[in-house]
Amino acid sequence: MAEKFASERNLKFLLYEVHDLEALAQIPYYREHNREIFDLVLDTAFKMGRDLLFPSFGEMDKQPPEFAGGVCHVHPSVRAFMEEYGEGGWIGAIASEELGGQGLPLTLMNAVRFVLTAANYSLSVYPLLTTGAAHLIEAFGGQEMIDAYIPNMFSGKWQGTMALTEPQAGSSLSDIVTTAEPTDAGYYKLKGQKIFISAGDHDGVDNVVHLMLAKIKGAPAGVRGISLFVVPKLRPTADGGLEPNDVVLAGIYHKLGYRGCPITQLSIGENNDCRAWLVGEPHLGLRYMFQMMNEARLDVGMSAAGIASAAYYASLEYAKERPQGRKLSSKDPAQPQVPIVEHADIKRLLLFQRSMFEGALSLILKCAVYADREKLGGEEGEKCALLLDLLTPVAKTYPSEMGVLSTSAGLQILGGYGYCDEFPLEQYFRDCRIHPIHEGTTGIQGLDLLGRKVTIQNGKAYQFFLAEVEASVEAAKKVAGLEDLTAKMDEALGLVRRVTDGLLSVALSGDVERFLADATLYLEFFGYVAIGWQWLEQAMAAQSALDNGAQGAEAAFYRGKLVTARYFFGYELAKTEGLAKRLAEADGLTAKAGLEDFTD
Amino acid sequence: MAEKFASERNLKFLLYEVHDLEALAQIPYYREHNREIFDLVLDTAFKMGRDLLFPSFGEMDKQPPEFAGGVCHVHPSVRAFMEEYGEGGWIGAIASEELGGQGLPLTLMNAVRFVLTAANYSLSVYPLLTTGAAHLIEAFGGQEMIDAYIPNMFSGKWQGTMALTEPQAGSSLSDIVTTAEPTDAGYYKLKGQKIFISAGDHDGVDNVVHLMLAKIKGAPAGVRGISLFVVPKLRPTADGGLEPNDVVLAGIYHKLGYRGCPITQLSIGENNDCRAWLVGEPHLGLRYMFQMMNEARLDVGMSAAGIASAAYYASLEYAKERPQGRKLSSKDPAQPQVPIVEHADIKRLLLFQRSMFEGALSLILKCAVYADREKLGGEEGEKCALLLDLLTPVAKTYPSEMGVLSTSAGLQILGGYGYCDEFPLEQYFRDCRIHPIHEGTTGIQGLDLLGRKVTIQNGKAYQFFLAEVEASVEAAKKVAGLEDLTAKMDEALGLVRRVTDGLLSVALSGDVERFLADATLYLEFFGYVAIGWQWLEQAMAAQSALDNGAQGAEAAFYRGKLVTARYFFGYELAKTEGLAKRLAEADGLTAKAGLEDFTD
Repeated sequence: MAEKFASERNLKFLLYEVHDLEALAQIPYYREHNREIFDLVLDTAFKMGRDLLFPSFGEMDKQPPEFAGGVCHVHPSVRAFMEEYGEGGWIGAIASEELGGQGLPLTLMNAVRFVLTAANYSLSVYPLLTTGAAHLIEAFGGQEMIDAYIPNMFSGKWQGTMALTEPQAGSSLSDIVTTAEPTDAGYYKLKGQKIFISAGDHDGVDNVVHLMLAKIKGAPAGVRGISLFVVPKLRPTADGGLEPNDVVLAGIYHKLGYRGCPITQLSIGENNDCRAWLVGEPHLGLRYMFQMMNEARLDVGMSAAGIASAAYYASLEYAKERPQGRKLSSKDPAQPQVPIVEHADIKRLLLFQRSMFEGALSLILKCAVYADREKLGGEEGEKCALLLDLLTPVAKTYPSEMGVLSTSAGLQILGGYGYCDEFPLEQYFRDCRIHPIHEGTTGIQGLDLLGRKVTIQNGKAYQFFLAEVEASVEAAKKVAGLEDLTAKMDEALGLVRRVTDGLLSVALSGDVERFLADATLYLEFFGYVAIGWQWLEQAMAAQSALDNGAQGAEAAFYRGKLVTARYFFGYELAKTEGLAKRLAEADGLTAKAGLEDFTD
Repeated sequence: MAEKFASERNLKFLLYEVHDLEALAQIPYYREHNREIFDLVLDTAFKMGRDLLFPSFGEMDKQPPEFAGGVCHVHPSVRAFMEEYGEGGWIGAIASEELGGQGLPLTLMNAVRFVLTAANYSLSVYPLLTTGAAHLIEAFGGQEMIDAYIPNMFSGKWQGTMALTEPQAGSSLSDIVTTAEPTDAGYYKLKGQKIFISAGDHDGVDNVVHLMLAKIKGAPAGVRGISLFVVPKLRPTADGGLEPNDVVLAGIYHKLGYRGCPITQLSIGENNDCRAWLVGEPHLGLRYMFQMMNEARLDVGMSAAGIASAAYYASLEYAKERPQGRKLSSKDPAQPQVPIVEHADIKRLLLFQRSMFEGALSLILKCAVYADREKLGGEEGEKCALLLDLLTPVAKTYPSEMGVLSTSAGLQILGGYGYCDEFPLEQYFRDCRIHPIHEGTTGIQGLDLLGRKVTIQNGKAYQFFLAEVEASVEAAKKVAGLEDLTAKMDEALGLVRRVTDGLLSVALSGDVERFLADATLYLEFFGYVAIGWQWLEQAMAAQSALDNGAQGAEAAFYRGKLVTARYFFGYELAKTEGLAKRLAEADGLTAKAGLEDFTD
């Protein structure tokens, strides 16, 4: 099995040469940090990936969690990893130092995230969920709640979750019916069902802390009646102990992939003894949750990019070693076979994989830079917040959707072996397929981008985005040798304007169904442009390094970047043409199709 | 679980209203047949699908074949199905009556194939392989061989296989090393290894008959030294019994999907006692095998279409029943949720699924019509043979590649449930993923189409194809209401000419690597056009039926056809734009990329 799951050289290229991670240390909040610390963090992440995560990647898939006697038993590496990761201070790494965190930039920690998911996606999820849940408590929970939960969450002893979905309320969260009844004791009593809760209960930790959505009795209908609660599996007692809190594990799902992590079904308050503590104000729960959700969406994108990275290196290794066939220009059967990496079509598949996950990784790091730079406040902070908002559905969806195709391309390179479980490709393919579903399906992301983000503040975020890409194009025009790329990006920007203007004119007509009918296609279209932008940035950095005299393996690395950028512009960005053609039609074909059109 | 896996109404629409199956009865070879017989065959196929195949669809996946004590144990439904299918005369249905067959048109039997694969792909494969292997013996084996094998193969007692692949020779068959040593007794002695042999050994039959490629000692290198042999697992003895033939099952593969059928590894002649009988002439084996292979490639396409059909009906049923969210134009949370089939994006996914498999089904039936009409001989026969040759890689690949995306779309409709194995979508998704790999990978098909078929006889097949599509467009122009479709098809044909001419000029320059670098993309491009053509044909038939006064459910069926055709032209055919743009570049980017471009 391939031993390489991610490239440290590439990650440092993106962080330092493309996204200027060091400049973040100039933000007051991060002034304690410097490149030495960043490098140490990255080196340790790769070491953890190699030693703690990757070794159990296949085994956790073949020995999935088991639900027996009311308990969900997980692979022993879960407890080992949670403990070591917690002790190392990684779960709270982005939290401020006064909260017991390390105040590290999100950009850096997103890079760490990439490494861990590439090494073992299922295992990487456990502490990640805890980080997200803890972040909600830190932001909105108040000191008492912080003291009660954060230390055990940061240490990896307690699992955090986000508990939103119910049997009747998945994409439509306004329809949750879990109810919260106030008591005089300060807590609420909860009753309901939650499903599809990742790591919602397991024996790899001592307790589970759910950040759960529910409706306080008498609350308004819809999303404006949703509140956020902390619901521990075991609740703290007055004497400092823990007692059961009437949150019962009802079952786990058997899934296509992502099998190392249990997705659970929970019964809450069956015995009317589930205590829950309100986070922040009543009825603002969905707004709070969206903080976690937006982080989670970037994490999903990063996870897909990470899995696709591991799949790429596994298929690259195979392609270099597997002899099969001969060059088309010299097919003499008396000559030995060549490694398949010499065939153009295999190189095409490899370049697709690479362009996909390196482009996605770059876009998500860019989003993280925006998140970090929000801390600057003022106009710049507001601009970064808007750009992050706009790009979040893109950074979630492009990697998620393309990750399925990218791992599938990797599987294809191995031919029949790719379809067999003695090679890891089929697992990467299965694992990756969750991403277009969880944390908001692709359809939901499309509606978010076109229906909400593009039009936000009268198109302000969208205009900022165009300005960012144009600035990149202008900068790239000053670098000799990138003319083919800048010309293509100019064309793509033209398409974006034309398509978006066309759709906005439909919106103005008031026909919201027709306006949003192809929102998913618009998201796909937008994704190619955003990733193209990131490849243009990478191409600039690579060309500059070559112009500055890079030699040997370094020069090869940069030339490989340029080949991959050209692959993306030639093969992937070109797909905007057909999408633009369809989006320009805006005839509402799917909106108008009726149930009777699906007769037989 | 959904009970519907295929639409009888649609199949009859395609057979009778689009492809005029009845006209085949005018071919002398088929003159015994008529619509009554055809309908009976189809009805029985659906009945078998429902009663014999569909019930074990999920179970065969969860209880895959087991290799124990040298034996591969398969699900009991294998023996039951092989017996009933054999007794019913289905295995030999296309064979002539003098061979014990029924002389039924291939077009009809391809339709049957569609039904069976939709019901249970893994189970449907067993007799199909026998039909293909038997066909080789019938065509090239001579009377003695026919008498020795065909009756037991047609009755379903013996399994047939095609045994080509070896550890060092998958896509590159010229590199097989299994050797055949002539003996004075009329048979050869074989020695070698075969891998990835579907149904290569199992306990659902009494014997296995391999149609195996090997090289006679001293044969020329490469494909011109390959011969075809019959190699039974148990060989006939002089007294009419059977004895072991030194073909040993070495193992089975554990696979992503297609789990109901064992893919085997065989050791041949380990004890120097494997007897093999030459089929036809020495050194012509690959040519013979390609008869079976071409049939198998259409079967693969049909299997992908069948699986995608079953996935479509399962997701359609879910979409009709699952309430979630509200119309974008009326989001009042006090109103009840609507079934998700009312959301435009769900309808888009459903229309994609439907346009994919109904389009593919139509193209493969068209190919089968060409195969049946070859029997006319003369100029028409030759034309049909050329069109079949040209379209085989397309009819194999479009369904195979798009089947993965189509089942994935079905999975997506179910959201989190789609990812869980309590619903069948994840199995359809896994099962379908084999098709771009077996019987020639997509990369191989691309080289076949562009490198061989388009240029065959100076472009004769390709010109016939253009003429066929143009004839459809001209006919469609006479039907009022299809102007949008004919305009788009005219445009697409213009792209085909431009792109193909451009690539052929590269071929003339002698740079074969650059000419074929994007052959896979060309195949994809060609696929959209070929399927668009089939949707135009369907649209014509549907519009005519409406113009002729179809009412009620029939009218709804035809209107649904038109909506699906318009979906295909709007969303899928539009993808030719980006592909044409890339193909026109023909810069050989992937051919030129070197190993050093994949540094880190």
